[in-house]
Amino acid sequence: MTASKSARPQAPAMSIDEFNAFMDEVFPAAGHQAGGRRMVVEAMGYGSCTVRLVFSEKQVRPGGTISGPTMMGLSDFAIYVAVLSAVGKVPLALTTNLNINFLKAPAPRDMIARCRLIKVGKRLCVGEAELTSDGDDEMVAHATATYSIPPDRGGRPQGLSPPV
Amino acid sequence: MTASKSARPQAPAMSIDEFNAFMDEVFPAAGHQAGGRRMVVEAMGYGSCTVRLVFSEKQVRPGGTISGPTMMGLSDFAIYVAVLSAVGKVPLALTTNLNINFLKAPAPRDMIARCRLIKVGKRLCVGEAELTSDGDDEMVAHATATYSIPPDRGGRPQGLSPPV
Amino acid sequence: MTASKSARPQAPAMSIDEFNAFMDEVFPAAGHQAGGRRMVVEAMGYGSCTVRLVFSEKQVRPGGTISGPTMMGLSDFAIYVAVLSAVGKVPLALTTNLNINFLKAPAPRDMIARCRLIKVGKRLCVGEAELTSDGDDEMVAHATATYSIPPDRGGRPQGLSPPV
Amino acid sequence: MTASKSARPQAPAMSIDEFNAFMDEVFPAAGHQAGGRRMVVEAMGYGSCTVRLVFSEKQVRPGGTISGPTMMGLSDFAIYVAVLSAVGKVPLALTTNLNINFLKAPAPRDMIARCRLIKVGKRLCVGEAELTSDGDDEMVAHATATYSIPPDRGGRPQGLSPPV
Repeated sequence: MTASKSARPQAPAMSIDEFNAFMDEVFPAAGHQAGGRRMVVEAMGYGSCTVRLVFSEKQVRPGGTISGPTMMGLSDFAIYVAVLSAVGKVPLALTTNLNINFLKAPAPRDMIARCRLIKVGKRLCVGEAELTSDGDDEMVAHATATYSIPPDRGGRPQGLSPPV
Repeated sequence: MTASKSARPQAPAMSIDEFNAFMDEVFPAAGHQAGGRRMVVEAMGYGSCTVRLVFSEKQVRPGGTISGPTMMGLSDFAIYVAVLSAVGKVPLALTTNLNINFLKAPAPRDMIARCRLIKVGKRLCVGEAELTSDGDDEMVAHATATYSIPPDRGGRPQGLSPPV
Repeated sequence: MTASKSARPQAPAMSIDEFNAFMDEVFPAAGHQAGGRRMVVEAMGYGSCTVRLVFSEKQVRPGGTISGPTMMGLSDFAIYVAVLSAVGKVPLALTTNLNINFLKAPAPRDMIARCRLIKVGKRLCVGEAELTSDGDDEMVAHATATYSIPPDRGGRPQGLSPPV
Repeated sequence: MTASKSARPQAPAMSIDEFNAFMDEVFPAAGHQAGGRRMVVEAMGYGSCTVRLVFSEKQVRPGGTISGPTMMGLSDFAIYVAVLSAVGKVPLALTTNLNINFLKAPAPRDMIARCRLIKVGKRLCVGEAELTSDGDDEMVAHATATYSIPPDRGGRPQGLSPPV
């Protein structure tokens, strides 16, 4: 009797609360602004997540749109969250490559990044992020990024669909 | 009375038969091998498609895997099919950028590319392709590509979800 | 009598002072920090430039290194400068794609971006940026980016090496 | 007394003849066509090379230009040559990411790829390739690619500018 590989999805390596506590420990200054977190993890699965970027006037460019670097930062962070959801607390997971396509001008409001890993390897993880303006289905940007995982990161299992 | 933008999905700009006839007209030598087409369009929607790369020993690399350039060529072709499914018969749609992440070694058998456009603009279309080995769900490669659409390409409407 | 295409290099479309004045007009808040500009254009040619990112503790990540989004923002800005040096004052030149490879951890000091355009087209410009830590020759990151030029941008000539 | 890091450039890990013999051993069928090699290594330094793609009618697209996949294959091969020139005979160096910008239509003649590595790491090497039509200085395409180096590849030293 065999089960399909996706029959029992694996649990994420940590909860959102554990992720937030880990962030505050290793990047104490990052990701916060007056009034709370600037990038909020709203959902987390094994190798997937949803992150909300809280709108701030600072991100705005002439024409009322949000800047490219803001979207690059959101993509990079969200894919990092997805990596940690699969491999656990690895502070020194490093981005080695990021590619982003800007598709349409985002509205001046919260932005949502939906991520999933498309590879979970021993040495490299690859993820993609779809960015939308909150309340709109059309993608404003699409990014892929590769993270390098240090060799001595501990014993967490690899693979997108590990044997159940 | 309004309909949601996605209520009535738009039909593709052409059928698979029309696409094949167009290919044979503008690229008569390309995409064929002894015994038939090398890359077979199996499904086509508005801005989406599935393309099968028929396995050939020529594509094999030591270790029994399929070469990177073969996967790049499949990605490029499949995203071109998706572009034409949205904008119609535009022979001079040109790739301006292609980014590909190689995720795992493909098996020595047919390869499937599933594509969708993530932007359909007047001047640029952007698509992504997920490549798998036939019969296996895990992605072997993921590509995004941008196509430039010549200005005088005719009157086909743009937009991923045009008003019904 | 003919001259080689590179015999008489074309002058940039504006001076550094004109560029700075243009930035302050269209992006009044951007690029400044307490004490002056955050990104300083140090040299500008036709389709090329050198930009210095003034170090700030805000950019630092644990381990004393500078964050990925900081490097992405510098690359994006520097290639924008190079685009404007070739096509003139086009505020709505928009990044459509950016690809960056992170090569080594940058030191916690000023970062230098050296850029050149590798295509100057009517609709698209493509540039590359090499990022180094100030005083060190080894690249810390390498980026390429594509900018879309709006159709009605005025009459500036195109081409990397226009006829003299 | 110290020497500057670039004072004594390192020799390549193999000669062109050794590279060709290695190719014929591990990829016996690849890279050849009637009449000789299809991709000819013309120069090789430590982490750099020049590769000529011999023109063939098979590469041509309507309009007399050379196909995108042909240019992707040339870029991938040439950067692989540069990787081996630095790390030695590593048949299983694998491309993990390739990004290419197509800049202008290439002429129907030989194409030249000039490559250099921009990172030589223990686990990852990153290179860039500039493609031109033979006899023309303007770039027709620009690619960057990352290669993964297997852990047990032997004892060749790393670094773009190792201590002399």
